[in-house]
Amino acid sequence: MVSRSRAVERLIALLGEFPGIGPKTSERLAYHVLQSEPRFARDLAAAIVGARESTKVCSQCFQLDETDPCAICSDPARERSRVLVVEDPRDVAAFEAAGYRGLYHILQGRISALDGIRPEDLTLAALTARIAKGEIREVCLATNPDLEGEGTANLIAERLAGKTVTVTRIARGIPAGSTITQVSSAILADAIEGRRPLS
Amino acid sequence: MVSRSRAVERLIALLGEFPGIGPKTSERLAYHVLQSEPRFARDLAAAIVGARESTKVCSQCFQLDETDPCAICSDPARERSRVLVVEDPRDVAAFEAAGYRGLYHILQGRISALDGIRPEDLTLAALTARIAKGEIREVCLATNPDLEGEGTANLIAERLAGKTVTVTRIARGIPAGSTITQVSSAILADAIEGRRPLS
Repeated sequence: MVSRSRAVERLIALLGEFPGIGPKTSERLAYHVLQSEPRFARDLAAAIVGARESTKVCSQCFQLDETDPCAICSDPARERSRVLVVEDPRDVAAFEAAGYRGLYHILQGRISALDGIRPEDLTLAALTARIAKGEIREVCLATNPDLEGEGTANLIAERLAGKTVTVTRIARGIPAGSTITQVSSAILADAIEGRRPLS
Repeated sequence: MVSRSRAVERLIALLGEFPGIGPKTSERLAYHVLQSEPRFARDLAAAIVGARESTKVCSQCFQLDETDPCAICSDPARERSRVLVVEDPRDVAAFEAAGYRGLYHILQGRISALDGIRPEDLTLAALTARIAKGEIREVCLATNPDLEGEGTANLIAERLAGKTVTVTRIARGIPAGSTITQVSSAILADAIEGRRPLS
C-alpha cells in the first residue's frame, strides 16, 4: 500500500487541531492546499504568521489587537463608565457594528461543565480588579442567550452583588427584522416576559 | 467603530478561499490562530508551504505525490493492465486501503452542470491517450454512486465504446457490515438489481 508523504500527513494533523475541524475536513483542506496554486500556500502561510505575530491580548479588556492597551481601551472618546462583558473577542466586532461606544471585557469563554471550563478559567478576577478602580458604573452582561451563557451571566451577577456597580443583562426578545409567525415560541415567551411600557 | 487589523482581515479572507469554508468559519479559524500559541501559527505555516512544495501532480495518472511519475505508476509490481478511474486524489488512499493493486486515473472532478464542470475540464483526453498505448485491458469506473458520479461514468463509458478495453463499473449494493433493516430502499434496490449467481 502506498501511503501519503510525511509532509502531507503533518499538514492534515495540524489542520485537525482547529476546533470543529474533524479528520475528513482537515484532509479536504490539506488537499485543497496541495491542488491550488503554490501562490495560495505561500500567501496563506505568510498571513497566518503575520496575523499571529501582530496580535496582542489587551491587558485591560483581553481584546485582541495590534497594541496593548487595545485601541478601544486607549480611546479617550469612549464612555469609560460602561463595560460590556462578552464571551469572545469576535463578539466585540458585532457590538461595534451595532453602535456600542463604551468599554468591553472579554471573558475568553463561558462556564461549561461539558467542556470543563470553570469560573476561574475566565477573566473574572481581572474584571473585579477593573471595577475596584472605581471608574466603572455599569457592567452589562452580554454572554450568549443560551444555557451556558445564561449560567455564566448569573454567576457573574452573584459575584458582583454588593459592589458599587449596576449589573445589567442584554435584552432577550424578538430579533429586529423577523416575523412573529416565524420565530420560535421560546423567543416569543422572552418577548412577552421582557415587555416594556410605551412612554 | 474600531475595525480589525489588515493582517487579521487578510487571514480571514485567505481562509475563506477554501471550498466549503464560509465567512463565519474562516473568522473562527483565524481567531483560533490568533488565540493559540505562536508555535501553532509557525508550525502550520511551515507545514502548508512544505506540503505544497513537496507535492507534484503525476503526469500519467494525475495522482498527487512527491515524485512524477508517482510511486504507484512507477511500481513494477502493480497490475498494469487495470486502471481504476476515480474523481479525486483522496479516493486513491481509500482504494489502496481496500487492497486494490492496479493503476489509477484521477479525473480531477466529475461532470456537474451546477458547478460548471464540463467533460473537457476532466483528464479524459489523458485517459484516452493512456489507453491508446495498448497496455491497459480494463478500465473500471469508480466515480461516486450519486447523480453526478453516475453521469460522469456513463459519459466515459460512451467515449470508450469501440476502444480495445473492457469498461466496468464498481458494484453498488449493501455496504459490508450494515444491517438490511437500516439501509435505505435505494441501497436495497441496487442490491437486488445487482444480484449474482452463487457459484
